[in-house]
Amino acid sequence: MQAVGLITEYNPLHNGHLYHLQQAKAVTGADCSVVVMSGNWLQRGEPAILDKWTRTQLALAAGVDLVIELPVFYATQPAHLFARGGVELLTALGCQSLVFGAEHPGLDFEQLLTALPKTQAAFKHYNATYATQFNTALQATTGMTLTKANDMLGFCYYLANEQFGRRLQLVPIQRQKADHSESQIVATSQFASGTAIRAAATQQAWSQIKPVVPAATLDQLRTQRLQTWADFWPYLHYQLLTGAIEQTHQYDQMAEGLEYRFKEMAQSATSFTDFMARVKSKRYTYTRLQRVATAALLQLTSAEVQTAQAHNYVRVLGFNPTGQAYLHQIKKQLELPLYTKINKDLRRHGLALDYRAGRIYGLINGQSQDLYRRPIQFLG
Amino acid sequence: MQAVGLITEYNPLHNGHLYHLQQAKAVTGADCSVVVMSGNWLQRGEPAILDKWTRTQLALAAGVDLVIELPVFYATQPAHLFARGGVELLTALGCQSLVFGAEHPGLDFEQLLTALPKTQAAFKHYNATYATQFNTALQATTGMTLTKANDMLGFCYYLANEQFGRRLQLVPIQRQKADHSESQIVATSQFASGTAIRAAATQQAWSQIKPVVPAATLDQLRTQRLQTWADFWPYLHYQLLTGAIEQTHQYDQMAEGLEYRFKEMAQSATSFTDFMARVKSKRYTYTRLQRVATAALLQLTSAEVQTAQAHNYVRVLGFNPTGQAYLHQIKKQLELPLYTKINKDLRRHGLALDYRAGRIYGLINGQSQDLYRRPIQFLG
Repeated sequence: MQAVGLITEYNPLHNGHLYHLQQAKAVTGADCSVVVMSGNWLQRGEPAILDKWTRTQLALAAGVDLVIELPVFYATQPAHLFARGGVELLTALGCQSLVFGAEHPGLDFEQLLTALPKTQAAFKHYNATYATQFNTALQATTGMTLTKANDMLGFCYYLANEQFGRRLQLVPIQRQKADHSESQIVATSQFASGTAIRAAATQQAWSQIKPVVPAATLDQLRTQRLQTWADFWPYLHYQLLTGAIEQTHQYDQMAEGLEYRFKEMAQSATSFTDFMARVKSKRYTYTRLQRVATAALLQLTSAEVQTAQAHNYVRVLGFNPTGQAYLHQIKKQLELPLYTKINKDLRRHGLALDYRAGRIYGLINGQSQDLYRRPIQFLG
Repeated sequence: MQAVGLITEYNPLHNGHLYHLQQAKAVTGADCSVVVMSGNWLQRGEPAILDKWTRTQLALAAGVDLVIELPVFYATQPAHLFARGGVELLTALGCQSLVFGAEHPGLDFEQLLTALPKTQAAFKHYNATYATQFNTALQATTGMTLTKANDMLGFCYYLANEQFGRRLQLVPIQRQKADHSESQIVATSQFASGTAIRAAATQQAWSQIKPVVPAATLDQLRTQRLQTWADFWPYLHYQLLTGAIEQTHQYDQMAEGLEYRFKEMAQSATSFTDFMARVKSKRYTYTRLQRVATAALLQLTSAEVQTAQAHNYVRVLGFNPTGQAYLHQIKKQLELPLYTKINKDLRRHGLALDYRAGRIYGLINGQSQDLYRRPIQFLG
């Protein structure tokens, strides 16, 4: 069996994702689709609107064969690290290819890669965004810049693939997007952005959402407790008011001095939105600040994130019979630890950060995210 | 002007407290009554049912002339440290006497003091209760034990007074208590315990409370947001689930190994009451465990508490014209810093722990506890 890999968030799964999945299978002719999906906390530094189990169920219902969790210490990171975590997992899982959506799939990513100086060092400059550093270098050597988020992420896949021995064939495809608008659902389109769908869901605008998502997604959105930053603001607020400055300083992606701004703005902030508006400055993007807020909420220190990144693992969230057979086929050659359930030792050590992230997420919907959970076995 | 001191919590102020105040004035013939009162967090390791400003207002209405806050780093401590903080403040404020209620005011506290070996060292044994250590020593030398809480606290006042140069005359008086019951209000009595009153207040049993408190207390209980541990449980729960074990270990009064028990029991606890029942063991009293929970909630480390205890201060919460005149009279001889309002520097340094404690308390009732607050000037 040959497998095609996808790296996703499915927040929530919509028609654009369905198209991506169908194309990935069609273009590669793979027997099995393997999806690496962020867990409960996402790359934009926010909680998933639906928990990882619900999103796994939706992925399996949409035809994904095997769903693997991208651990929180990669999922909540800047693009180049998010890409690295995903590519490492797909490589370990023996996938032949990685199919990704890009705004400009015709870009010659390989050529861009060789045009650039080898920029491993740039990965360490946490205080400028990777995108900025990358584009500065690219501009200097080729006169081009990558301004679109998914083109940029695509390039990061190439970079990561090089790090892991170029064992994946990378296949860019055209990203389907909403006509005219990323922030609103357009009535005449079957595609809308996740942002637009989440906004409509929090307003319970179900009739708007219906044309742009599978029926199962709509069902889940209508019946589950939808989670947003507003739910977690009381905890973040408490933590910023209470934690010592030395401790706040240690949180992942907290740039020098930003801990003072976070603590000071928490004094008068009245909501998460208000807090973000207060901490925002020209120097940092909202996404960056949200990732720092996520690290503060989960009390993830940069030291523990870096240690964890050196010990990636394959955490299985769900599969259908095809996915199960594939997992069985590659199990013996798997180069990373394989976890299908959590125990006391894993909760405290190997899976400690994901467990913690799940406990905090579960404070709102009351659903255990790890204890007593087994991979979803989807029978179709 | 001569002043009599009292050390109180007024949680909430009831007829027993009124009696204590009247007796203190009558017995000493003092011109001015100075009350050192715990702020928003109390010696039993719990939030005050009414905030410190409401309780100050009630104290002034009851006839107290000057109200001073016992800082959180003394208020939430075992009896010998609670006593030390209060005695230090009354001594600094030039009070002539300290009148306290005891179960057995006839005890010869002076003699008990001399009968004991000088037990300064015992103060440092955080892991056995002071009461236990004290009674073991007392039993060995005199054959007696002090089993009643207020007798014990009274003895601690003598001990503290010795530390501060015996500048207060200590006056034990008979404590008025509820007939037959500490846990329930007895219909035929004008006295009830704070515990019984708080229990009745959370059940809104106003007619039961009316005979045992001043009218102003009843008014405040009926109209203010009453705060209990249940309100703060979500924050404590979050913190215990999220904080690193090394950090949890550093909280004040956290005995060796107790941090593991706290974190482990937080995994499955469903409420503060349930949590306390799970962490309870023969080794620790509920009160002790509640104090540790308070330290964890406020993220007070033993290091910062000990540093703060070496830098006590006089924080004025309220006064009437007599109290104001007294304050004016002694101001120049005051041996501790005097604070009547908070500023940015005090918020970050001198008053940082009280400020933090007030911010957490204020998360529930939405009332600023320090910023923009001035002492209450009571005109009668």
